[in-house]
Amino acid sequence: MKIGFIGLGIMGAPMAAHLAQAGHVLFVNSRSGLPKSLAAHAVTVCDKARQVAELAEVIILMLPDTPDVGEVLFGSDGVADANLSGKVVVDMSSISPIETKQFASRIEQLGGHYLDAPVSGGEVGAKAASLSIMVGGPQAVFEQLLPVLQLMGKNITRIGENGDGQTAKVANQMIVALTIEAVAEALLFAARAGADPAKVRQALLGGFASSKILEVHGERMVKRSFEPGFRIALHQKDLNLALSSAQKMALALPATALAQQLFNSCAAQGGAGWDHSAMVRALEQLSDFSIPAQ
Amino acid sequence: MKIGFIGLGIMGAPMAAHLAQAGHVLFVNSRSGLPKSLAAHAVTVCDKARQVAELAEVIILMLPDTPDVGEVLFGSDGVADANLSGKVVVDMSSISPIETKQFASRIEQLGGHYLDAPVSGGEVGAKAASLSIMVGGPQAVFEQLLPVLQLMGKNITRIGENGDGQTAKVANQMIVALTIEAVAEALLFAARAGADPAKVRQALLGGFASSKILEVHGERMVKRSFEPGFRIALHQKDLNLALSSAQKMALALPATALAQQLFNSCAAQGGAGWDHSAMVRALEQLSDFSIPAQ
Repeated sequence: MKIGFIGLGIMGAPMAAHLAQAGHVLFVNSRSGLPKSLAAHAVTVCDKARQVAELAEVIILMLPDTPDVGEVLFGSDGVADANLSGKVVVDMSSISPIETKQFASRIEQLGGHYLDAPVSGGEVGAKAASLSIMVGGPQAVFEQLLPVLQLMGKNITRIGENGDGQTAKVANQMIVALTIEAVAEALLFAARAGADPAKVRQALLGGFASSKILEVHGERMVKRSFEPGFRIALHQKDLNLALSSAQKMALALPATALAQQLFNSCAAQGGAGWDHSAMVRALEQLSDFSIPAQ
Repeated sequence: MKIGFIGLGIMGAPMAAHLAQAGHVLFVNSRSGLPKSLAAHAVTVCDKARQVAELAEVIILMLPDTPDVGEVLFGSDGVADANLSGKVVVDMSSISPIETKQFASRIEQLGGHYLDAPVSGGEVGAKAASLSIMVGGPQAVFEQLLPVLQLMGKNITRIGENGDGQTAKVANQMIVALTIEAVAEALLFAARAGADPAKVRQALLGGFASSKILEVHGERMVKRSFEPGFRIALHQKDLNLALSSAQKMALALPATALAQQLFNSCAAQGGAGWDHSAMVRALEQLSDFSIPAQ
């Protein structure tokens, strides 16, 4: 199949490489140029997003944020300037669910189809083709694209209509941030009360307090291992999507707002590049007490 | 062994019954009288806690809150009025870690030993003898009492010295409350954005957002099934232990404080007896929007 891929960054490059390795013909466009992983394959580099959309049947986007997707789709020489009749735009970026619905509607008015298909699993998942993919869009289009998505991910779920994939991704990032907050407050409490937070973590695994976050990020907090992982700056972008969408919908999210403020405190400490488990450092800063290094 | 058991409520009665069934001789004291489950066994009812402590080698407490334990131990005709030389007090109530350390110190000064051994698993776990037990106290005393604890629970962990068992229990309840908050905000966000929260929950299980709470309490939120379960009023008691201990230690716990306020909102709606997953109703009240019943 002729597949367009716009955005060949840390995530996009390995994802596109999986498509090329499977024999698909790629037309790419990226600010960062052609990555080495694609150099060995039959890949056509296009100057403009419009060219990609003219040459490919499926146009995949993997971009940093909502304005980038808006610009690539509807900016000058953008995807929407091509004839999109029967073509499918697949936005795998993590962006606003609300604006995604508008983007999808405009693409459909131009004769195209649209899937929002944000991923989780990070660079490791992108390289291993083991990403979780949360999809919003028409069932028939989802089924048509499933073989392509399966080249990049494993746990692929159609949540519902356009925007619902992005909504699920935002919900995922909210739960991850707030569960980090939960584990951070509890382990800090344990340490401050004189208990060994590593033993408390161990005792709580398996019970009702158990979570992937207690297992992985709880261990990071105890071992003081805050190399990313997943950077706080990226998680702040995801919580901004939650909070700005919530404001547009008049929905109060008090704990999500608090988590964002704690990330701000990490950034104030020079920690925008720390792993998100370092949220515990914002709590430690608040009380001038830290979990002792093990 | 001659075992004293003080507090034969919803939890204490089935726990004491397991000890009697195993052939231990029981001396009991309870405001609620002798429960039916113990009537068939060789059980001596004592009027005063002091009598229990005089007749038994091990004195187990299963009481509602910190002041109850203080009164039974050190009030008039309390445990401390008996000769405690070589005897072991095992407090299985969920109470303040800080006051537990003081209680333990006073009992040891009187020649006794002390374990704090709070449980999780609720009435179901008490009846099935499958409680998780988090223990604080000297290693040798823990080993001496382990066969007795194994008659009531399965996952039995010595966290550390006196108070550390209570600290682990408080940490457990903090994580449970805050993870309920996480799941509640995320599923409410998903529903408000027009996605199916049941599908979002399903897609998120297995990834980094996965937790026992997303699995069990997330399903309750989606199915609007708020019969306890674990009552909000009881969880409020546990968060009070966290917040009052934190104040004594000058430790800031912003998310725990927020969760307590949301439980207050549930109580304002008449929901002190709802299952704690109904914290989502406080968020729904804030925004005048509810997850639709499935």
